[in-house]
Amino acid sequence: MLTSTRSLQVLLVAATGAYAQFVFPDCTSGRLSNETICDASASPLARAKSLVALYTLEEKINATSSGSPGVPRLGIPPYQWWSEGLHGIAGPYTNFSDEGEYSYSTSFPQPILMGAAFDDDLITEVAKVISTEARAFNNANRTGLDFWTPNINPFRDPRWGRGQETPGEDPYHLSSYVQALVHGLQGDASDKYKRVVATCKHFAGYDIEDWNGNLRYQNDVQISQQDLVEYYLVPFQACVQANVGAFMCSYNAVNGVPTCADPYLLQTILREHWGWTNEEQWVTSDCDAVQNVYLPHEWSATRGGAASDALKAGTDLTCGTYMQEHLPAAFQQDLLEESVLDQALVRQYSSLVRLGYFDSPDNQPYRQIGWDSVATNASQALARRAAAEGIVLLKNDGTLPLSLDSSTSIGLFGDWANATSQLLGNYAGVSTYLHSPLYALEQLNVTINYAGGNPGGQGDPTTNRWSNLYGAYSTSDILMYVGGIDNSVEEEDQDRTYLTWTGAQLDVITELAETGKPVIVVVTGGGQIDSTPLVNNPNISAILWAGYPGQDGGSAIIDIVTGKTAPAGRLPTTQYPSNYIAKVSMMDMNMRPGENNPGRTYKWYNGSAVYEFGHGLHYTNFSANITTQMQNSYAISALTQNCNSTGGFLERCPFAAVDVEVSNDGDVTSDYVALGYIAGEFGPAPHPKKSLVSYKRLHNITGGASDTATLNLTLASLARVDEMGNKVLYPGDYTLLIDNHPLASINFTLTGEQAMLDMWPQPPANRTAEGVKGVGDYWYGGYGSEYAEEPADLQNTM
Amino acid sequence: MLTSTRSLQVLLVAATGAYAQFVFPDCTSGRLSNETICDASASPLARAKSLVALYTLEEKINATSSGSPGVPRLGIPPYQWWSEGLHGIAGPYTNFSDEGEYSYSTSFPQPILMGAAFDDDLITEVAKVISTEARAFNNANRTGLDFWTPNINPFRDPRWGRGQETPGEDPYHLSSYVQALVHGLQGDASDKYKRVVATCKHFAGYDIEDWNGNLRYQNDVQISQQDLVEYYLVPFQACVQANVGAFMCSYNAVNGVPTCADPYLLQTILREHWGWTNEEQWVTSDCDAVQNVYLPHEWSATRGGAASDALKAGTDLTCGTYMQEHLPAAFQQDLLEESVLDQALVRQYSSLVRLGYFDSPDNQPYRQIGWDSVATNASQALARRAAAEGIVLLKNDGTLPLSLDSSTSIGLFGDWANATSQLLGNYAGVSTYLHSPLYALEQLNVTINYAGGNPGGQGDPTTNRWSNLYGAYSTSDILMYVGGIDNSVEEEDQDRTYLTWTGAQLDVITELAETGKPVIVVVTGGGQIDSTPLVNNPNISAILWAGYPGQDGGSAIIDIVTGKTAPAGRLPTTQYPSNYIAKVSMMDMNMRPGENNPGRTYKWYNGSAVYEFGHGLHYTNFSANITTQMQNSYAISALTQNCNSTGGFLERCPFAAVDVEVSNDGDVTSDYVALGYIAGEFGPAPHPKKSLVSYKRLHNITGGASDTATLNLTLASLARVDEMGNKVLYPGDYTLLIDNHPLASINFTLTGEQAMLDMWPQPPANRTAEGVKGVGDYWYGGYGSEYAEEPADLQNTM
Repeated sequence: MLTSTRSLQVLLVAATGAYAQFVFPDCTSGRLSNETICDASASPLARAKSLVALYTLEEKINATSSGSPGVPRLGIPPYQWWSEGLHGIAGPYTNFSDEGEYSYSTSFPQPILMGAAFDDDLITEVAKVISTEARAFNNANRTGLDFWTPNINPFRDPRWGRGQETPGEDPYHLSSYVQALVHGLQGDASDKYKRVVATCKHFAGYDIEDWNGNLRYQNDVQISQQDLVEYYLVPFQACVQANVGAFMCSYNAVNGVPTCADPYLLQTILREHWGWTNEEQWVTSDCDAVQNVYLPHEWSATRGGAASDALKAGTDLTCGTYMQEHLPAAFQQDLLEESVLDQALVRQYSSLVRLGYFDSPDNQPYRQIGWDSVATNASQALARRAAAEGIVLLKNDGTLPLSLDSSTSIGLFGDWANATSQLLGNYAGVSTYLHSPLYALEQLNVTINYAGGNPGGQGDPTTNRWSNLYGAYSTSDILMYVGGIDNSVEEEDQDRTYLTWTGAQLDVITELAETGKPVIVVVTGGGQIDSTPLVNNPNISAILWAGYPGQDGGSAIIDIVTGKTAPAGRLPTTQYPSNYIAKVSMMDMNMRPGENNPGRTYKWYNGSAVYEFGHGLHYTNFSANITTQMQNSYAISALTQNCNSTGGFLERCPFAAVDVEVSNDGDVTSDYVALGYIAGEFGPAPHPKKSLVSYKRLHNITGGASDTATLNLTLASLARVDEMGNKVLYPGDYTLLIDNHPLASINFTLTGEQAMLDMWPQPPANRTAEGVKGVGDYWYGGYGSEYAEEPADLQNTM
Repeated sequence: MLTSTRSLQVLLVAATGAYAQFVFPDCTSGRLSNETICDASASPLARAKSLVALYTLEEKINATSSGSPGVPRLGIPPYQWWSEGLHGIAGPYTNFSDEGEYSYSTSFPQPILMGAAFDDDLITEVAKVISTEARAFNNANRTGLDFWTPNINPFRDPRWGRGQETPGEDPYHLSSYVQALVHGLQGDASDKYKRVVATCKHFAGYDIEDWNGNLRYQNDVQISQQDLVEYYLVPFQACVQANVGAFMCSYNAVNGVPTCADPYLLQTILREHWGWTNEEQWVTSDCDAVQNVYLPHEWSATRGGAASDALKAGTDLTCGTYMQEHLPAAFQQDLLEESVLDQALVRQYSSLVRLGYFDSPDNQPYRQIGWDSVATNASQALARRAAAEGIVLLKNDGTLPLSLDSSTSIGLFGDWANATSQLLGNYAGVSTYLHSPLYALEQLNVTINYAGGNPGGQGDPTTNRWSNLYGAYSTSDILMYVGGIDNSVEEEDQDRTYLTWTGAQLDVITELAETGKPVIVVVTGGGQIDSTPLVNNPNISAILWAGYPGQDGGSAIIDIVTGKTAPAGRLPTTQYPSNYIAKVSMMDMNMRPGENNPGRTYKWYNGSAVYEFGHGLHYTNFSANITTQMQNSYAISALTQNCNSTGGFLERCPFAAVDVEVSNDGDVTSDYVALGYIAGEFGPAPHPKKSLVSYKRLHNITGGASDTATLNLTLASLARVDEMGNKVLYPGDYTLLIDNHPLASINFTLTGEQAMLDMWPQPPANRTAEGVKGVGDYWYGGYGSEYAEEPADLQNTM
């Protein structure tokens, strides 16, 4: 029985504290110094294998925990695999000092707002800052080298509490974004040393926290192969293309199988079909997703079975200690071979080798990074710019931009007006500062009538706190309301239950509007709020959406409001009318419209959006012109034949580089996001309204000037996915549209026989759980769960 | 325009801090000293009227806010009407000192656990302590005299996040409990001075926080007159009978009308039909429920309309400032008469007179209460006893009570094992201490292997925190798990979404059970958790339910476990199987079974409960014998004729005082709760399985001894409610049952014509909202809302 020794080791880690988890092994004079693991000239694979060969079975088992105890007898220190870096370094094991050096870092906007910038270069820049600051903290033994970011599940349903962590709803957008991000976090694939390791999560089909008892730990989502390939898996394949170092399997099951115990997802698709086969790439489970394979999924009949099923399926590490605790029983019961465990450890240690973990710091530039590289002026400016680039101007009657001078008085309202940590959203570390809209206004020479308090926040809307409001608006020339939703209603473990403005907030805003003064509403939060009453109210002058804008979010908002920065962000998600959520179960994963499903995302939603995906106004007018001469017609056979450099991925064959000349026809200098959509009735019906296939943000186009965006289309831009999940190029008529209300478009035809671009591996036919003895009749809740009895017909409950 | 002056006054209150809200007017030498309001010999009504007559309209309007600014020119100081006292003094305006005197008070168990004691005398004792401590704090200007407690809505649906605040699901139980409580809080109705004023809330039909977008602020619940009278209103009528000083109208609408703007509820039923007509009795709105009359209810077309509609309906005060802000417009638009406002203020000030607010402290014993009356030894002992009396023994294979000695080693597990504020539940102040089960065990001479951490709590169930567990159970003789749910899943604004044990907790508990050692599970939380897997597991030795046991809850749990106190609590709610919530919408208010509704509470639920309402085991065996000689048959006409002393309420006519002799047939001294149910197929079908009509807790019956419980039945014990809401006495066969698995029973017959006991006033026929302009097409969400379009059929979303 191995328990007592292991417990002692784990206790040791706890006792020595967080710092001990981020020290490096001694390859100079220690026990390992003469082993291949310490030979910097050997391959990562050879080095890792040499180390694992020294481990006893017990030591190997110990290494499956995210808080790995290491192997003291060999000089392998404890290592904490779990760090977070969603929009700045963060996470439970990242150790900020109480004051002085290492007491803060740069906190960027939430991905949902950075996604709205549609600026991949920006994302790479941000990710480089995060990985630089991560190295600085790691060098101070304050965080790890493995970052469990990004959350790149598409933001499918507006209720999702963690949609804020993603760049939005469109799979192409997410794919392009995530490649830029991984590049910034990890560095070039050819670099000897990785900056840090990124982790694409949550693989796959994870986008529900708790919808009416459908809990993330137990959900079994039913996804067609078509939707899997066309939507849910797209950004994850992009992660593979970006050579991401790690994946995280998720809490939920997909089509009956918990993802962390699913060899079809982790081996057949991820490793074999997509070719994520480098030995330095590993899969971790989400925190105790391996436990969930046992309960509540009831997939494996024993705890040891859950641990071995996950390991055998391709999960190399578990957040928590479940494998560590239960693999001994699995080995005693001959449920797996030791070689499976060896493979997992070789992947882990190869990855650490690529991070320079076993090499002398002297030869590693990343090991030289210190506190002076954290929260630099440039990083702070980047955080402000990232927020300003993302902010979306939804409505404007000409009131914006404001011309402020010392004679202007601004009334400032809303529970975000003096926001602090609200600005950051979830998965935030300690930011350099927290600049609210009030702070930012105070930097200007204007009179501010700040109404204070919490007028109509998400919680108890007591008007006790409204009192200043009535005084403030009467003495102000311009009224600005900053509020919406925050992490009190959308968070990890908590999905939204309504899309409306709360009555209290709507009451306050419409009271402001009744003054007839200019009213600017800045809407916060990651999920969209149905702003129909504000859109329809002629006394609401302007509406901005500002997401979670990060440490300098208030400044960014005021930059946009005052025209210091011209708005050019675009909505990364559809703003649905509020009754959308009554029309579709969150557990209905179908993208296409059907009975009890009006369709999902701008591609398939068959109703009228309040504001569409991609919507965003400017302070100037743009026109566009496609300057590339395209053919009227393309032979499919020719498109697929002349393509050899894509490693067998025909969909990556280039199709066209389309130059779009964008002209600023007004007089305000502004960025412009060129959005390229493909539309057309080719391939199997139903057809999406359109699909984003390329985008490019142009910067600082001055009035009267023009600039060119090159949109690089591939065969994937034209492909459709059939019901089996195959990607196919179909003959038919295609249109390339530039922007939402197209500023330009061009038509072309594909001719000849349809061509298979990617044949999708089908799931094995019979996949049934052994099930858990004794609790098999226990109902884990959730309408739509496979364990559910017939739920109540909610239509007729009045 | 009154705004600026009012704002200034409100600001003044804020600036001078909370203390200023609890000082007393100067009736000795101040401006008022010669006015009738200061004449202690005058009637409260005359005194209040004299004061209100001095007020200007603006000053009257100001007085409608819970944070009343007072009238400085008259020497009326600000007064904060909002204090809380659910299970000890609490609330946002109760000011605890940082240290020393007034830095804590006594925190009793949550009502759901005190309800389980079925001991009205205990409740009165507890309420007396709360009101005593309230007076001590008030005398130190640290809290008010008006306590917005109890929450006495019946605990209808196991998902309700605030069910913990109530004594349970049974309306008779709640009625009996609340009368005991109000008596303890307020004192005798004939006392010159009230101890404090209690407030029965939330009137009425309020028991949903957020079910799938059905938010408390906007819900319009549809309740039949039959269910209103038979279930939802029962405890509120008991409040009237107890002469409660205040009511609170609720956020929701009932049958289309927001309760705070509903003269049918507030005037016709409450004041006229029930006779709650004393001028010192007033109604406050829940916090900003008047605002909600405007939005999101859209009942009134303007803000001023909402304020005046509420005032005219009978709401005398609003939590928040909504009336204060919007009554000026209502008066300008002639929406109401000033006399309506006068009436509200007279009620308020009459109530304050009864509290001695305007009288010299010298003649008031309550004004002499000081810090030495707070958290006395007796109060602390009472808090411990209250918890121990409530704890319910659900399962026991004979393992309990434990005989502990120095050779015993106990393994202690679960995220409540070392609980701190979890013990208290919501609406808690600062308690005297927080004694966890670990603390209580440490007071004994035993070896404790505390597994620490958070093994399987409600949040992130990372097994990193489980590590000690594996070591702890192997070295222990007896294993005890303390956990379940807490305020992270059931709270104000948050309903539960599942009734199961989480997979992680069930995993830990069943791992403990696999050791074959005695395993005791103490289940926490206000709502019941379906414990089927534990009930069915023969290796789980015992299950206790401990609710939120308060400041000394750990001691109470160990008192029960060790047999220092014998368990005699009874479940105050049904423990439904977990799939119950899939079978009925939370918005379905029907009590009787129907399509998509398996029925609610033990009276109507047509499935098999895991544990039934009233279930509770003992450490001994009891038998019972009905010793009162009852007639075989009673003539209805005779029952209703000889009854003159009930103030016109025929249902209160006594029927029988039934003596039940209870014998302790074992050898462990124990309390016993005699539960009296009436069953029978009399009156309109369907018939409830049975109905609780009386209960009495007997104390400390020693082995071999017996004691007598007298169950006082009235005509209400036998009455049924028809579809119109009338209470009727029907001829037929009745059975009185003693206990759940009856220890005794007796049959009798009622003969003759049915008799009307109470003719229910019917709601007016046409009640339609004016509606709000501009947002009338805005969908406020919620399946089952009248604003909802057809919701998705959730049965077919797979």
